[in-house]
Amino acid sequence: MHIKECIMSAPGKAILHGEHAVVHGNVALAVSLNLRTYLQLQATSTSKVCINLPNINTFLSWDVTELKQLLPDSGAELGNVNELDAELVRRLRDLVGVSNGTLDTRSMAILAFLYIYLSVFAGSGELPSLTVSVWSELPTGAGLGSSAAYSVCLAAALLSASGTIPSLLSDQESTARWGEVEMELINRWAFQGERIIHGNPSGVDNAVGTWGGILRYHSGKITPLSRVPMLRILLTNTKVPRSTKVLVAGVKDKMNKFPSIINPVLESVNAVSCTCEQTLSEMTSDTPTPEHYNILEELIDINQHHLNVMGVGHPALDTLCRVTLARGLHSKLTGAGGGGCGITLLRPETECSVVQDTIQDLRDCGYDCWETSIGAEGVQQHSPLAVKEEALEVFARY
Amino acid sequence: MHIKECIMSAPGKAILHGEHAVVHGNVALAVSLNLRTYLQLQATSTSKVCINLPNINTFLSWDVTELKQLLPDSGAELGNVNELDAELVRRLRDLVGVSNGTLDTRSMAILAFLYIYLSVFAGSGELPSLTVSVWSELPTGAGLGSSAAYSVCLAAALLSASGTIPSLLSDQESTARWGEVEMELINRWAFQGERIIHGNPSGVDNAVGTWGGILRYHSGKITPLSRVPMLRILLTNTKVPRSTKVLVAGVKDKMNKFPSIINPVLESVNAVSCTCEQTLSEMTSDTPTPEHYNILEELIDINQHHLNVMGVGHPALDTLCRVTLARGLHSKLTGAGGGGCGITLLRPETECSVVQDTIQDLRDCGYDCWETSIGAEGVQQHSPLAVKEEALEVFARY
Repeated sequence: MHIKECIMSAPGKAILHGEHAVVHGNVALAVSLNLRTYLQLQATSTSKVCINLPNINTFLSWDVTELKQLLPDSGAELGNVNELDAELVRRLRDLVGVSNGTLDTRSMAILAFLYIYLSVFAGSGELPSLTVSVWSELPTGAGLGSSAAYSVCLAAALLSASGTIPSLLSDQESTARWGEVEMELINRWAFQGERIIHGNPSGVDNAVGTWGGILRYHSGKITPLSRVPMLRILLTNTKVPRSTKVLVAGVKDKMNKFPSIINPVLESVNAVSCTCEQTLSEMTSDTPTPEHYNILEELIDINQHHLNVMGVGHPALDTLCRVTLARGLHSKLTGAGGGGCGITLLRPETECSVVQDTIQDLRDCGYDCWETSIGAEGVQQHSPLAVKEEALEVFARY
Repeated sequence: MHIKECIMSAPGKAILHGEHAVVHGNVALAVSLNLRTYLQLQATSTSKVCINLPNINTFLSWDVTELKQLLPDSGAELGNVNELDAELVRRLRDLVGVSNGTLDTRSMAILAFLYIYLSVFAGSGELPSLTVSVWSELPTGAGLGSSAAYSVCLAAALLSASGTIPSLLSDQESTARWGEVEMELINRWAFQGERIIHGNPSGVDNAVGTWGGILRYHSGKITPLSRVPMLRILLTNTKVPRSTKVLVAGVKDKMNKFPSIINPVLESVNAVSCTCEQTLSEMTSDTPTPEHYNILEELIDINQHHLNVMGVGHPALDTLCRVTLARGLHSKLTGAGGGGCGITLLRPETECSVVQDTIQDLRDCGYDCWETSIGAEGVQQHSPLAVKEEALEVFARY
């Protein structure tokens, strides 16, 4: 079987506003984070399916014949993108040796890969031998949508290799994106990957990984904002470990303990998200002004205080806010809080030296810090010429 | 004319919860601050009226005959406690040499003294010679009700000296308080003093100075809480100067700029005040428990975040909160914010060494810091035996 080789990338995700409040029916703004996951799919003639995940030190391969045995004999339908095939998941768990409760990153990543691989190629009656290599700029388990970026790349690459969606690149193009229909299909398959990895995901992370930009999320409904500015940020990982489940439960406890105090705060967070959405929309229809950035900074400060009121702050995040404010920059936590990551808005006029000094200050605190952007493109196909040197070097090893 | 000598004291005031929100129709809790102003009134035979205000380096005297000329010839009524006599204020301003706009602390303190002195004694047809000396533990101009404590002491001492209210102390008693009727009269005269000093005061400060304890203030209505616990606190003055008027206007601006964000925050502050009132009431009807203190601490943290959202925080107040939290203690700004003062709650079990270390930490930041309490007694009459050594030493000089 002839398959098409390709290189894909997809962005991570951050929450700009509305984390926690979204759990209680309020608006959240999820944004693409331009720390990307890169995936290279190569055709081989080894009769093997190989996966290389150097970020998590995982390198595995299976005989195509071994994998074929997992397909139903009867020709029962596989490849339904709307429902997870529980029987196939069970067989893959047996193959990979995952007991029901285990949720380690490696096993989940492999299950998602094999599930999408088998489902996408089942229809063609033949399983191709291929090698998939993945390298990511995203830290895992930091609430930055690294699993979704991975699932989106897998879906795009396997759908493209199988010919289900077209391979985009002509010789001239170095980077390209699909149309709405193909994107929708990529997103649905990526969501299946997310379901295997997370059980009951909201679908926001894979939507951000697919469409990029900024998405409004409200009561289960995901709406991409039509036009959004790209904003420069620092992303900081305090590396303080936290449990999202415990933090969400803590907010609920506070709501039960002080309903008359906390409910208006959630209402105010909702208004922060809506005001931010409005401001971003103005920034794309008019020229962005310093006042637009002032408002974005004010909203960041207000929301950070609200998140502290909800009890999801942490001294490491207070330090992040203080250290960046000393350089005139405004920060908030992003995601679950209680440690984890924060974002710092950079203004267009923020000087390079200020950015570098701030990054150094934050590294001196023991944090990881990246200069990146939010609102960037979603899933893309790249020619090798258009891929980061760093990713190519990794891929060259496999 | 025979007048009764006496020593009075009245407490300062802090806002426990609801500063700024109160301006927009929400509940505030004003509490007595056990940093007190002491006033000694002595009868003299010098035919002079003297006032000694060592805290503001002010020592003045007038001939009684000179002051008599300020009284209306016609026997027109003076001493109406419900209305400020504009004509008398005008004459006093001429005497003291205050132009209409001037509002320096000294002139205002003298005007208030002479106004109450003349009004209280006008009815008796004779002006006694006397010396009033005042010494205060309260910093002036820090939003701690120092002018109200002064006005309350003046009213109590002059009403007592004139025989309008009884002098309380029998030989056995060292400290005593008046009944409701006398307290009401003291409060009304103190309010006249406050009107002279501040123009259009709310009446909260003199009410706290008179009744002490904790007062609920809502839409102009002042209600003393019936029974309240006395809470140990640290009072810290960051000494960062601020303008209450500018801060109040800034909050109004934020409300206009982001109504949907800020209005729910004011609603939440209102709920903080009401929850605190409820908790304090439980602490007096049951035995106070650690959980009561946990709630008081949580409310302090929440309100401090809300005040930051309103834009009335300051890095010096952030430092106060951080430094005290490092010792396990919770702080918030009190009053206008933007610098000024903060309060730190001490728990019953907070060890003396922790308190001392915290005070030292705060002094190392360049702040003034006092260990005191809130919810203490209002205006009191003392025998010399029951007055702080420090006050007596000051009084001994005059």
